[in-house]
Amino acid sequence: MKRPIIFISNDDGYRAKGFNEIVNCAAKFGDVVAIAPDETQSGKAHAITMYDPLYLTLRREEPHIKVYSCNGTPVDCVKMAYDWLLPELGLTPDLNISGINHGSNAAINVLYSGTMGAAIEASFYGAPSIGLSLDDHDHDADFEATIAFAERIIPAMLAIDKPSEPLCLNINVPIARPEEIKGYRICRQTRGFWKEEFFCRQDPRGRDYFWLTGGFCNHEPEAEDTDEWALENNYIAVVPIKVDLTDYARINMLKGLKL
Amino acid sequence: MKRPIIFISNDDGYRAKGFNEIVNCAAKFGDVVAIAPDETQSGKAHAITMYDPLYLTLRREEPHIKVYSCNGTPVDCVKMAYDWLLPELGLTPDLNISGINHGSNAAINVLYSGTMGAAIEASFYGAPSIGLSLDDHDHDADFEATIAFAERIIPAMLAIDKPSEPLCLNINVPIARPEEIKGYRICRQTRGFWKEEFFCRQDPRGRDYFWLTGGFCNHEPEAEDTDEWALENNYIAVVPIKVDLTDYARINMLKGLKL
Repeated sequence: MKRPIIFISNDDGYRAKGFNEIVNCAAKFGDVVAIAPDETQSGKAHAITMYDPLYLTLRREEPHIKVYSCNGTPVDCVKMAYDWLLPELGLTPDLNISGINHGSNAAINVLYSGTMGAAIEASFYGAPSIGLSLDDHDHDADFEATIAFAERIIPAMLAIDKPSEPLCLNINVPIARPEEIKGYRICRQTRGFWKEEFFCRQDPRGRDYFWLTGGFCNHEPEAEDTDEWALENNYIAVVPIKVDLTDYARINMLKGLKL
Repeated sequence: MKRPIIFISNDDGYRAKGFNEIVNCAAKFGDVVAIAPDETQSGKAHAITMYDPLYLTLRREEPHIKVYSCNGTPVDCVKMAYDWLLPELGLTPDLNISGINHGSNAAINVLYSGTMGAAIEASFYGAPSIGLSLDDHDHDADFEATIAFAERIIPAMLAIDKPSEPLCLNINVPIARPEEIKGYRICRQTRGFWKEEFFCRQDPRGRDYFWLTGGFCNHEPEAEDTDEWALENNYIAVVPIKVDLTDYARINMLKGLKL
């Protein structure tokens, strides 16, 4: 039987532990082709590179695994894969994976996340797409529980029919040992936003500079159908993602407005 | 009577013609505080700067107008304004504007657009937010029709009650003289995606490099309630935007899946 083709990307770069763990895991289920950024691209959202040339470098080649890196953003990696590399190799993916991210992409983080930017972009090309993130920024984080779930979600996603509309899952895993995790929940995105603070200092030339820092404000901490609630209660959160940003509830309100 | 406070940003940078036209226009309705990027940040989506310090520079100061620039992304500009500059100045905006962008942000462009990244981010802080774009990339584009519509939408948005949930409008203006525009339509985001092609050449050291280029594939060119249809038929397209990316229709499908 023909092995499935699995395309993988991330935003932490091709050296990241989480990326290499999911590449090795996915290769048990199919042939992996991966393009990840050369360096970390956290917080790059759906950014694309418009004014600089992109380069592609082969980093790892062994049975069932080909890993490349690219100097662009996570979304650039996906476009480079689907609109250049995969056609060159004569391959059409059956599944897309982005991650495993070092850090949660639950709630509004989905909007800033390069991991989810890549997962969403990949879903546009037809195969199901999953973004996998662990709620731990440590570069040496323990991905065992995430890999255990990946070993269930990968064959499940390979078994479904090709979706007629883009199918993308935002999967976030709490920091816990596999035996401590209570299961998974199909959730919705939590309402809330990041309230920033700017850390201000003077540089050696006397100019003020600022670093971004802040905290997430959860607008609905009690809502049990949200991804933040799931994570806080030791469940894996699975949110299906769609990128129609239209605020349908407001269309009628606006039609009543006199402009 | 106290003049309203209007915060303005963009993604083309503080020197762009569209930005300066909307700053001058808005100053007729209120006191403008603007932070725009130092340089062009097109395609930067909702990206934030996590690993570099940010600097803020005053570029223009005259009655009712203060323009700053920042070395970060459009979303950085908004966060810097709301979480640093505006509190320092003791000001709370009544309206946010991002633009006028040189180029359309209709359909899926909303996802890649730094202009809309800034508009969306600003809406999180409470005041209504409008992203304004003209379907013309020319650096010397004719913004007369866009400004004519801005002169109607700005007072209309200043007159509404402060929204209880973020209110953000994605407004796109066709290339046309003001008298040729048929009016505006409240629309939804068109379904479709960008199919890229990579322009490949060799650099002087013999390495392949790639430039991103491509075209938009409209999945529903006949749908009259979409923003692309409006633009193609010489209407101004107004899409209310919301950033709950949850694909609610798929929650039940997923609940039926055995993982």
